[in-house]
Amino acid sequence: MADTTFLFTSESVNEGHPDKFCDQVSDAVLDACIAGDEMSRVACETCCKTGMVMIFGEITTAATVNYEQVIRDAIKDIGYDDPAKGFDYKTCNVIVAIEEQSPDIAQSVDAVKVEDIGAGDQGIMFGYATDETESLMPLTHMLATQIGSKLTEVRKNGTCEWVRPDGKTQVTCEYKLVNGVPVPQRVHTIVISTQHAEDVTNEQIAADLMEHVIKPVVPEKYLDEKTIYHLNPSGRFVIGGPHGDAGLTGRKIIIDTYGGWGAHGGGAFSGKDTTKVDRSAAYAARWVAKSLVAAKLCKRALVQLSYAIGVPYPLSVFVDSYGTVKEGMTDADLTEVINKNFDLRPGCIIRDLNLRRAVMRKTAAYGHFGREDPDFTWEQVKELKL
Amino acid sequence: MADTTFLFTSESVNEGHPDKFCDQVSDAVLDACIAGDEMSRVACETCCKTGMVMIFGEITTAATVNYEQVIRDAIKDIGYDDPAKGFDYKTCNVIVAIEEQSPDIAQSVDAVKVEDIGAGDQGIMFGYATDETESLMPLTHMLATQIGSKLTEVRKNGTCEWVRPDGKTQVTCEYKLVNGVPVPQRVHTIVISTQHAEDVTNEQIAADLMEHVIKPVVPEKYLDEKTIYHLNPSGRFVIGGPHGDAGLTGRKIIIDTYGGWGAHGGGAFSGKDTTKVDRSAAYAARWVAKSLVAAKLCKRALVQLSYAIGVPYPLSVFVDSYGTVKEGMTDADLTEVINKNFDLRPGCIIRDLNLRRAVMRKTAAYGHFGREDPDFTWEQVKELKL
Ligand SMILES: C[S@@+](CC[C@H](N)C(=O)[O-])C[C@H]1O[C@@H](n2cnc3c(N)ncnc32)[C@H](O)[C@@H]1O
Ligand SMILES: C[S@@+](CC[C@H](N)C(=O)[O-])C[C@H]1O[C@@H](n2cnc3c(N)ncnc32)[C@H](O)[C@@H]1O
Repeated sequence: MADTTFLFTSESVNEGHPDKFCDQVSDAVLDACIAGDEMSRVACETCCKTGMVMIFGEITTAATVNYEQVIRDAIKDIGYDDPAKGFDYKTCNVIVAIEEQSPDIAQSVDAVKVEDIGAGDQGIMFGYATDETESLMPLTHMLATQIGSKLTEVRKNGTCEWVRPDGKTQVTCEYKLVNGVPVPQRVHTIVISTQHAEDVTNEQIAADLMEHVIKPVVPEKYLDEKTIYHLNPSGRFVIGGPHGDAGLTGRKIIIDTYGGWGAHGGGAFSGKDTTKVDRSAAYAARWVAKSLVAAKLCKRALVQLSYAIGVPYPLSVFVDSYGTVKEGMTDADLTEVINKNFDLRPGCIIRDLNLRRAVMRKTAAYGHFGREDPDFTWEQVKELKL
Repeated sequence: MADTTFLFTSESVNEGHPDKFCDQVSDAVLDACIAGDEMSRVACETCCKTGMVMIFGEITTAATVNYEQVIRDAIKDIGYDDPAKGFDYKTCNVIVAIEEQSPDIAQSVDAVKVEDIGAGDQGIMFGYATDETESLMPLTHMLATQIGSKLTEVRKNGTCEWVRPDGKTQVTCEYKLVNGVPVPQRVHTIVISTQHAEDVTNEQIAADLMEHVIKPVVPEKYLDEKTIYHLNPSGRFVIGGPHGDAGLTGRKIIIDTYGGWGAHGGGAFSGKDTTKVDRSAAYAARWVAKSLVAAKLCKRALVQLSYAIGVPYPLSVFVDSYGTVKEGMTDADLTEVINKNFDLRPGCIIRDLNLRRAVMRKTAAYGHFGREDPDFTWEQVKELKL
């Protein structure tokens, strides 16, 4: 199968997208609770539609939080400050429908010793790493994310005054499969849809996107004369944000993770404190997968963990190296390496990755993984004992 | 790598779970719109929390729909008919915050000829099939789903009077990997958490679940004395449904599809009419993958499609057979088979799978794939020309 080429596509959205808007509000609320009480139990969902944002869910905290203010501030940071942009943080309707965590759930999670903290829910979580880029993230996902982030940069710094907050990006790469490792050959297609001011022409949109967004992000070696560009293919995208499309927390979970590579357990991250294994165990699974690849035990790794509510230890640990495991080892050996080097009980993950900190809002746009920020502790490779 | 065994886990939830509750409400609204106007454009999101359900999003339809009634009826069918169960369809607060589809989006989708219908959004979608079961679905996912469905059956038919609507299930299987094909060996662990009446003991819960739920569903050959059972591991689950946990549409997308096997593009299904490729192209991708495996061109297939908004043809088509492709063929050949046999423009998918019908509500619990119902047209294998 060596030398087969194939196409793979990943997409992203930037911080003005209505679903991502909700993720950021949820994590802003989480951070506010954790900042005041690091033991807060938080499950904060958000939804938005024209002129309205609502948070709902379960929060038990000793912190005093002005939810409305936290929400308005988060929306202001995104840049929705004018009805003409589809949303205005100053005048929008903010609804707070928060209750306390179910005592039935709380009693099964609570514990005196961190080691004994029960998983806050059942579920399956995956982590992925691949040596195709330096951050050990898939290239298609990395490019789609970075293009989205650049789009926000040129909006906020004024380079392209016509850009508005909402936007989506998508990158298709041609890969060659070499012994189980996908090796990027070129960029096949780039799609960008960005919300724009009424008075800009499609020609200027296309020219500016090419010049100020694509060129600074995509390495020249990947672009050639056959690369296809769909720049605002719908032809018109003035109505945007929650005005054009409803938003909900947890609806961009592939964009949050590996862009379709690897696998996903289905759990969302934003708004959840880290007793929720949906979040903490997915972070740990990335930490594990990245550590295996960084140690050159394999070139690609997919790690699955599973939990039962109230039970600390994972029920199962699975690793797939896609046939790229180091000579003399098997995937079963990799599983043993994991079991020897990582304590995957939720309390231990929280302790080892230092997850009780109010740093989650920045994870809520442009990906939870592959980022260089030191607060992303799960990206810091662990040295493995073999 | 032959003969390595590994553990893999899938989870499911039943129809009383708050997120699934929302999926069913969203699809009930969709069906009501389509029943009155098959050209309806629908993007109906739902959220719920204690005593409250809200639908929001974009609907353009010529049908006259009593949304409130449709919503209450859907909740009644699930079985939330008493505040003691955590929700009551008769007295809950129903909020309708529906607007019309953005004209900017509508103009890029609309077309006179079906072939020309533009994709309603960008995005990536996957389909998966595996020959490990007759329905060509993964066993872990199948069992988790069927256990969840059985739990509802024994509640609704009165076999276990203490069972209440909310519940989650999870199944870990031990697999042997034989030439790229995961072959199920045994069931390693089963987790069931079901909401229950106040007055039932944990002993009776465990005994009844074993007798009336697990035994009728899980083939005896997979169970042995080492199989681990976590039956209501949290110890107490009286508070349930939207009272215990907020719900949102589109938050169970792995449960809706392949239980962590294959991959996922991130798009949700429920509440979306089939001009939305998130739904129709994911259905088509399953149809394609299943047809390839049924034709014995490979034993497992993962198919990825990608689209740009307003553009009919997919931007990329990818297939991974996990090294199980028939001798003499390659994955690139499989891609060619797909391109020759399937027209993957959204309008053609809608036409060929007959997707403009009000049959979506039943997809919204117990999985969109692997079902035998003739309305699941994407499960009807297409004969392939080679
Ligand atoms: C196309 S909308 C999803 C469909 C929508 N709910 C409907 O009913 O038509 C998904 C995302 O596409 C982007 N979008 C909105 N309007 C658009 C337009 N006119 N052209 C391109 N993309 C658009 C926004 O980021 C939005 O959140
Ligand atoms: C555990 S809750 C998620 C966490 C919740 N949002 C919180 O803040 O605690 C997820 C699902 O677990 C189930 N669940 C609710 N209460 C439970 C309990 N006491 N024991 C076991 N499962 C429960 C329900 O299906 C619920 O939707």
